[in-house]
Parts: sequence; structure tokens; C-alpha cells
Amino acid sequence: MRIVLLLAFLLASTPFFSQTEDEKQIKAIYDMALTNGKAYDWLNYLSNQIGGRLSGSVQAQHAVDYTKTQLDALGLDKVWLQPVMVPKWVRGIPEFAYFETSPGLTTNVPICALGGSVATPDGGLKANIVEVKGLEELEKLGKAKIEGKIVFYNRPMDPTLINTFSAYSGCVDQRASGAVEAAKYGALGVIVRSMNLRLDDYPHTGSMRYGDTPVNQRIPAAAISTNAAELLSTTLKLNPNTKFYFKQSCKQYDDVQSYNVIGEITGSTYPNEVMVVGGHLDSWDLGDGSHDDGAGCVQSMDVLRILKKTGYKPKRTLRVVLFMNEENGMRGGNKYAEVAHEKNEKHVFALESDSGGFTPRGFSIDASEENIEQIQGWKNLFEPYLIHVFQKGGSGADIGPLKDEGIVLAGLKPDSQRYFDYHHAENDTFEQVNKRELELGAATMASLIYLMDKYGTVPTQKVKG
Amino acid sequence: MRIVLLLAFLLASTPFFSQTEDEKQIKAIYDMALTNGKAYDWLNYLSNQIGGRLSGSVQAQHAVDYTKTQLDALGLDKVWLQPVMVPKWVRGIPEFAYFETSPGLTTNVPICALGGSVATPDGGLKANIVEVKGLEELEKLGKAKIEGKIVFYNRPMDPTLINTFSAYSGCVDQRASGAVEAAKYGALGVIVRSMNLRLDDYPHTGSMRYGDTPVNQRIPAAAISTNAAELLSTTLKLNPNTKFYFKQSCKQYDDVQSYNVIGEITGSTYPNEVMVVGGHLDSWDLGDGSHDDGAGCVQSMDVLRILKKTGYKPKRTLRVVLFMNEENGMRGGNKYAEVAHEKNEKHVFALESDSGGFTPRGFSIDASEENIEQIQGWKNLFEPYLIHVFQKGGSGADIGPLKDEGIVLAGLKPDSQRYFDYHHAENDTFEQVNKRELELGAATMASLIYLMDKYGTVPTQKVKG
Repeated sequence: MRIVLLLAFLLASTPFFSQTEDEKQIKAIYDMALTNGKAYDWLNYLSNQIGGRLSGSVQAQHAVDYTKTQLDALGLDKVWLQPVMVPKWVRGIPEFAYFETSPGLTTNVPICALGGSVATPDGGLKANIVEVKGLEELEKLGKAKIEGKIVFYNRPMDPTLINTFSAYSGCVDQRASGAVEAAKYGALGVIVRSMNLRLDDYPHTGSMRYGDTPVNQRIPAAAISTNAAELLSTTLKLNPNTKFYFKQSCKQYDDVQSYNVIGEITGSTYPNEVMVVGGHLDSWDLGDGSHDDGAGCVQSMDVLRILKKTGYKPKRTLRVVLFMNEENGMRGGNKYAEVAHEKNEKHVFALESDSGGFTPRGFSIDASEENIEQIQGWKNLFEPYLIHVFQKGGSGADIGPLKDEGIVLAGLKPDSQRYFDYHHAENDTFEQVNKRELELGAATMASLIYLMDKYGTVPTQKVKG
Repeated sequence: MRIVLLLAFLLASTPFFSQTEDEKQIKAIYDMALTNGKAYDWLNYLSNQIGGRLSGSVQAQHAVDYTKTQLDALGLDKVWLQPVMVPKWVRGIPEFAYFETSPGLTTNVPICALGGSVATPDGGLKANIVEVKGLEELEKLGKAKIEGKIVFYNRPMDPTLINTFSAYSGCVDQRASGAVEAAKYGALGVIVRSMNLRLDDYPHTGSMRYGDTPVNQRIPAAAISTNAAELLSTTLKLNPNTKFYFKQSCKQYDDVQSYNVIGEITGSTYPNEVMVVGGHLDSWDLGDGSHDDGAGCVQSMDVLRILKKTGYKPKRTLRVVLFMNEENGMRGGNKYAEVAHEKNEKHVFALESDSGGFTPRGFSIDASEENIEQIQGWKNLFEPYLIHVFQKGGSGADIGPLKDEGIVLAGLKPDSQRYFDYHHAENDTFEQVNKRELELGAATMASLIYLMDKYGTVPTQKVKG
């Protein structure tokens, strides 16, 4: 009898028997992702069989067809395409650029047109070039020193910021608004230092806007690699009369039909409460968009597959949404929110992965204090998986438009150190994604979805915009 | 007057003014590492100009000379070489292997000799091959099924373990003891699945031991790539009579003279209390040893340089030690501890970086509870840098022999997901190291060294062995 009691006591106190249901389910999720994940295979196909998926391209359409087929095969309750018109901007023939320190003495440099830019004249554009560290310097220089020239924006990302996205935020105005602002002072074109913390030879594209600048006043904009930016800057110090030449033949076409790809497991208890997990299916055209954001798409797809495979039946309706056109228009995210609003759908939670397929560190959460505290209360459940960031902050561009509905929004936060080595550049390729890191991200997302579904959100005032 | 008071209150409550001395010093360390680090340049030289640094090789000697020269240039108080005799094992001409399903029908597979292995006979070794999942299966099979055959150890690393070093620990007995154990049952040789979580074509070397097995009973051992291990396993299921052939010409020479490289900033207040920061300078010969452990060496060197550059003067004596021969003998670590003991030096803290140059996540600490709690008490200081692991555990192989002295031992814990993709293989190269991740590791180490120096260790009972 005594031995039996002792045995019972021992069994009761061993970790296995004291494991809670949540601990078990989350362990099952991670085990499934790491031993039987599909994300990496899907990404291989998206990246290596389809490639870069710029909105309006044939590849973007292939990606819609492929992911729809794959979701169909998962046996979800519903899979559909949500129509959305998207802009179609095309790069055209490869860009070409050089700088000239004296007549005939030229050095070629790697550039790429910024997304949305106009072309240069057919024969290219050649002019003196003036370096600035940011938009605010334009006013100081004034029309006298800018008119008829090319403006070279060369403020680098701040390497001392641990979160590289903060360093990106501190620079990206040069890319987004550099052309519009320089045009006001009579500039003929702009060259922008790539948003890259590393010194290398890849130019990084990304969106820029003309706003309401009349079409005939729009000037072409291109990114230059960080190595070339350094070289050009040094050259300008030695020879301020250096001229810059570039030629690009990009073009904006009429909008074309495209789609958000959506799959759903209908909730068993609260089918009218919708939770979204997603990423964006479009990418830039230079690489194959593996980190931005093929990774987020395949992780989101695997969240539903993993939960299904572990036998978990969501109480709420769980949707994977692969948004179209995040990069140069945000049409997919806006359309999804618009339709949700029209249909009066109640969205309670949305989680986006759009920061690369790197080792997950945690989440940023855009919600009321009560809801952030609820999620922070689950910290211990995530600790064995080294997930430790649960910070108030943004979520994801595509799910942002859902915000008015008062839902909890969150973004997966992977380790950010390598992200801008690849972001929007030719080297954002499948080889740069580590299988385990990608899978850990999917498992981390699935675990939060599980907890949010099981416990629901905390009833609260509408989140203020 | 009132305005002055208000202003004083505001100033006192702004984050800048409330920043503690520790916060400021740690910020200065990280800023220095990220804007003016030397680790990456040093690693470039070690990896690309010198290459793999196997103990006793010309490259290992070059690495001793190079790092000594670099430490000399830092203006430390003392730099010296500590003589240590090391084993010299040489791989010889590239290994060759195939399996044969029927006479003449062969498939070549990538293998490499395990470090310390004997050669095959000159003409190679060909025999039937029997697959096992681990050492314990040998007894079940017995002499009847093993004698005259090659044993194929094929237990993979467990992908569900989040810390990949735990998965490594669960497999490495096959590599270390596989030959000794199989020889007891009359095996002619062993082939071991590479310690790699990924399926690829790189064989991963690493040390194995013969213990007291007489020289004439030592059998050759090689690693096979994970892809080839899978193929061989499948082939054996279809055709259990498959034969395996391999040829390797590796050889153990007499011990040769080598050195630990040591640099020191002598303590300003307690010069007799020594703190060590280090990594191991030797590596395997297949790649260039960038992650294992060029990274740890250059980070450790940069710890002293960064502290100096930020103007911090250690109260205690701070030594960088680049240990020789961690991989196949541990002679450098043992020698350092032996000399420290002979000289009656009081070592209070030692920190090793030998887990790759990836994003740092924290530390494992081998010390008394009081000292672990002290370090855990600094968690908030590390939080802005996303350093969150402060766990009781091992430290580093090279500093382990110092343990008897009752000091605090710690190991840097970088993110471990990619480590075994490269460990001991041809692809452990400079390109696989990210500059920022490497620099963040150096800063994290320097910050802990700073805190340990400033506050000292907690007086405690000797740590039990």
C-alpha cells in the first residue's frame, strides 16, 4: 500500500503527468511543424517553380492558382478566390547606370527602378548629381542647387538599432517620397541608397509614390546598391562635378484582375467569429520573394494544416488569407476588409507574418491593454520554444485595414538581423530560408491561434485608431 | 522659480537622464560593436586567408601568428603564447565510397573520415553493411550478425528538440564510440550518419575515440552525408545484401608544438582576480571553421578591444584566451587550467563562445545558485538587446577544466537552428556568418564581462563538480 501511494505521488509529480492540456497541444503543434511540416515544400514550389510574383504578373496568377489548389487539397471547409483589381507595373529591360568623373571616364553601378517609377527618356538621363542625407536637406539646397540635377539620397540605415525594422523606418522616406520632393525643386531624377544594412552589390527595389504630382512632372527614381552608394559618395567628394547616367524603361499599365486566396475551417461553436492568419502572396520581381513574403504565406497555410493534423477543431472560424498586392498598392488587404465590412463579418483576431522566415522571437500586438495582457499571460507556454517578445506595436500591413472592427491584431516577430540583407532584392531567394526557422515560425503562429481560439479575446472597448 | 523646478523635474524623469551608468555603458558597447566592430574583418582573414585550422597544421600555426599580431596591435598590457603539445591527425587524400547492390552496380556516396580514425587498408575496405539505430542495438545483433561487416549507424538528430545541441547530444555517441563498440563484435569498419538536421550532401566530420583498444584492433570510421544515409537505408531495406566500399588514408602523427594565444588587460583594482573570455582557434579541416569556432575567437578578441575603446578600465584582470586543439584533444583548455593552477592564479569568471556566430539569445551558466541569480538579476539590462536566456547549464569545453577553482563559468548561447547545417562540414565558411549577428554576440559577451567585472562574483561555497 505504501509503495502504491509513493508511486502515485511520483507519477503525479513527474512533468509528463502535470503537463496541462495547453502545454500538450502546443507541443503537438511544434512537433508536427518540425517533423511533418509542409511550409518548406510549398515555399520551394512558390520560389523555384513560380518565382517573383509582382502584382499583375503571370507569376502572381500562377501563385494564386497553385495556393488555391494546395488549400483545396487540405480538406478545409471552404476555399475561394476573392477578386481584387491590382495595379500592374512592369520593370521592362534591365536598368543601366554609370557615373562619369570626366568625359568618357565612366564607372558602371548596379541600380534598379523603384516600384511605380516612370521610365527615363528613351536615351536615358544624364545630369550632375547632388548628394543629400534626407528630404529635409532639399530646402537648404534650394532650387538653385537642385534644378536640372539628379538628387542622390544617401542616408544609411542606423546600424545601432537592434530592431532592423526601426532602422528601415528611419530611411524609407527617401525611397517613398524622394522623387516627389526633389521634383518640387526641379530635379530630373533621383537615386536612392538601398535600404540594406550590409555593404554589397544588390540594389533593393520597393514602392515609391507620386501622389498628386501631375504626370508630366513625374521624375524617374532608382535604387543603387550600398557599395555603389559609398563609391559614388566618395567620388562626389573628390569631384563634385561628377555626372550620373541612368536608363530604365519601366511602365505602369491599367489595373488587372487578381485575387486574394482564402481557405477556411468553419468554427464549431462560434462560426460567426472570424480569426485570420495570413501573409501576402505578391512579391517584388527581382528575387523570388521567399522571405518577403512567400514565407508568411506558406506558414499561414501550414497553421491550418497543422491544427487539423493535431486534431484540434477551432471553436471560431479560422481563415488563411493570402493577400494580393501588399507591395505596391495594398489592394488585397483593403479589399478583404471592405468585403468583411459589407458582409458584417465579426473579425476577432488577425495575425500576419510578413517579416521573413527567420527564427521566431515573438509577436507585436496591436490591441487594447487587456488583450495585450491576456497574450502576455501565455508567456510561460511559449518559453520552451524560446518565444519571448510580446510587445505592443504594429501588426501587418494587410490586416491593418481590419482595425476599425475592434479586433486583436498581431504580427509574428522573427529575428530581424538578416532581413534587410535580402529585402526587395535579387538575393531574396529560397536558399536564404532555413527550413527549421520557417517551421518554428509556423508553429509559433499556430500556437497563438490555438490559444486565441480556445480562450477568445477579452471583451473590451473598441481599439482606438 | 517654479519653471526651473518643473524643468528639473522633467529632465530628471526623461529616459535619457534616468539612464543608469550600466545602461549607458552597455549601450556604448553595443553601439561600438555595431558601428566599429573588428570581429568580422578578423574572421574574414582567419577564414579566407588562412582557412581550416586543424591542430598541428600549418594553418593552425598561421592562425596563432596572426591572432598574436592582432592582439599585439591592440595595445593590451600583455600578449603571449602559451606552449602546448597537440595531436596531429591528417586526412590525406580525399575519401572515396560507394555502395554496391549487385556486382558492378555501384552508387558513389559522399563520406569523410572521422577525426582520429585509422585509414582503411590501402585498397579500401569492402564488406556487407548492417544498419543500426545506435550502440545498444549491437548487443541484440551480436557477433553473428556483425562480424566481418561494416556497421552503419543511422540514428538521426531529433528534430523536435528546440535546442539543436540537445539533438546533437542525443546522437553523438554513434560518432564518438561507434567504432570502439562495433569492433568488439568483429566489425571491420563503421559509417556514421552525419550530425546534421538537414538533408544535404555534406558529410560532417568530428572526433572519435579508440580508448584503450589495441592498435591492431582499431577499425576505420567515416561520416556519410544525411542524403546518402537516407539512400543507403532505403537501399538496405530493398536489398539487405548491399555491400559498402570505402577508402581513406588518414594518419595520426606524433604530437607537435602549438600554442594558446593569450592577451591581457591587467586589473586596475584586483589584478590578481582573473576573468577569461575565449573560443578555440583550431577547427576541423573541411571548411574554414568560421562558425566553429573562428566566430568565438574574433568575438572574444573584440570584447577586449570594445571595452578599451569605450574607455572602460577593468578592475579585474581580463584575459582573452584563444585555445588550441578543442576539436581533437582539448589540450589547450587543459594546459591553460594546469598553468593557472601551478601559478596559483585566482580565476573568478570565464566565458566561452563556441556555439556559432549566430544572433545571441543569452547565456548558459555553470555556477552556484547565488551567482546564477546575480546574473539573472541583470536581465533588464539585456532586454533592449533581445537577450533573454539566462539558464543553468554547461559553459564551454575549453573553460571547463577551470571549474575546480570555484569560478563562475558561462557560455554564450546564440540561436542554434542553423548551427548543425554547417558544423564540422565543408560548408562552415565565412559566407554563412552574418556580420551583425556576429557583432551582437561580441557585444553581449562584452556586456556580461563588464557587469561581472564591476560587481564581482557572489562569495559562495566552491561549486561542486
